[in-house]
Amino acid sequence: VIVRLTLSYRGTAYSGWQRQANAPSVQQTVEEALERLLGCSLRIVGASRTDAGVHARGQVAHLELAAPFPVRGLVHGTNHLLPQDVRVMAAAEMPAGFHARKSAAAKEYSYRASRAEVLSPLDAPFTVQVPRQVDPTLLAAAAGRLAGRHDFSAFAASGGSHRQPWRTIFAAEWQERGQELFFRVVGDGFLRGMVRALVGTMLDVGCGRRNVESFAALLRGADRTAAGPAAPAHGLVLEKVFYPAPFILPGEAPPPVW
Amino acid sequence: VIVRLTLSYRGTAYSGWQRQANAPSVQQTVEEALERLLGCSLRIVGASRTDAGVHARGQVAHLELAAPFPVRGLVHGTNHLLPQDVRVMAAAEMPAGFHARKSAAAKEYSYRASRAEVLSPLDAPFTVQVPRQVDPTLLAAAAGRLAGRHDFSAFAASGGSHRQPWRTIFAAEWQERGQELFFRVVGDGFLRGMVRALVGTMLDVGCGRRNVESFAALLRGADRTAAGPAAPAHGLVLEKVFYPAPFILPGEAPPPVW
Repeated sequence: VIVRLTLSYRGTAYSGWQRQANAPSVQQTVEEALERLLGCSLRIVGASRTDAGVHARGQVAHLELAAPFPVRGLVHGTNHLLPQDVRVMAAAEMPAGFHARKSAAAKEYSYRASRAEVLSPLDAPFTVQVPRQVDPTLLAAAAGRLAGRHDFSAFAASGGSHRQPWRTIFAAEWQERGQELFFRVVGDGFLRGMVRALVGTMLDVGCGRRNVESFAALLRGADRTAAGPAAPAHGLVLEKVFYPAPFILPGEAPPPVW
Repeated sequence: VIVRLTLSYRGTAYSGWQRQANAPSVQQTVEEALERLLGCSLRIVGASRTDAGVHARGQVAHLELAAPFPVRGLVHGTNHLLPQDVRVMAAAEMPAGFHARKSAAAKEYSYRASRAEVLSPLDAPFTVQVPRQVDPTLLAAAAGRLAGRHDFSAFAASGGSHRQPWRTIFAAEWQERGQELFFRVVGDGFLRGMVRALVGTMLDVGCGRRNVESFAALLRGADRTAAGPAAPAHGLVLEKVFYPAPFILPGEAPPPVW
């Protein structure tokens, strides 16, 4: 049976999702808890390879089990064995053919920034401080150019190995909440480092260091050096992964369409 | 000169605001940072004695300085010396007569609960898990009875030493945000343990263990044992302290009126 896990984690203490030889990863942490619970060795496959320090509310992973296991037992049993900064939010048996990464039709990320002079300790682990003069109107204008299918080469981190740099953005917007600036983006896929590079470049626009047209021009393909710096990891949250039928769970939204 | 500090802290690691002989307090932590910065011994007075584990976004404290000190230097200098879970959000010189506790005209607290089966690690330090069957309509009905002047004896923790148990509530409401339930209350003052006892008793109403009328009856004065249990500390945040003129800082709201 193929089991789907929905995972939430605070990325602060991890070198990212992906298992690595000499650094703590979320993947390895979850695998070790499942191995202790189930008494067998196993591997899980995540939908998104979130970077070091990036958080998740709705990461999805799958694993194959030789025999069925009650899903509520899987949720609570695994959580009992996990450290406090990683949680299995839900588990479900999936139809044959489900693959957390390959079946994914879209993903949603959020990014939280604040213009406050001092960040509250309640927000600081999840919020990036940006200059007071960042103009929400300019951020909104930049985000307004993102929807559609573009060549995102200018926003791909050098370590990425993507066959093609075209991705479709279904929705992208900045919300202003007092001093806070909250970015939300939904796309059919994201190149490595793409959201952080987009946010960093939009913040350049917001500060007046770059204009909206020069940002929009980068969406037609360009060298990574043409775009702005990557925004820090700890503002980024993988919110949700969307799957098409027959992999949509009860209560879940279908993938967005363009 | 009298200086007002606005403070935010994550209460998890502290035994509360108030300085204690053998336990770490927020007050002592802030005093020690100020003493290192200013090179003199001093005491600060806080507006609210938040309990162990309770958080703050807008605690207010005052201190007396023999000589003026630049307030931006006080903010950033103190923050440099404070641990990451306590921050001075702002500092201001105040007119003579200002006293953080005695001048306070009103306070605002919030309480965050969730009916989710598993809490995200991003929310868990600030959110209390409540039974799935808690009914937001019943919570709203209970909160709707709070506005006005009442005898809150039934909601006063036994350790408190209040001359009189009458307090005025200006506003009280529960908001539903998906699985989350968010309570906000503004009053001219709160007895020791009062917000947590109110929340715990309203959650009893929300679960059907008590009806709205029996909750409302407790607002006419009763023994503490007549009300429900105190809700856990880590859902509670001291959001704001209101002061009357001439102590209102630029950008701050005046105290609410009844």
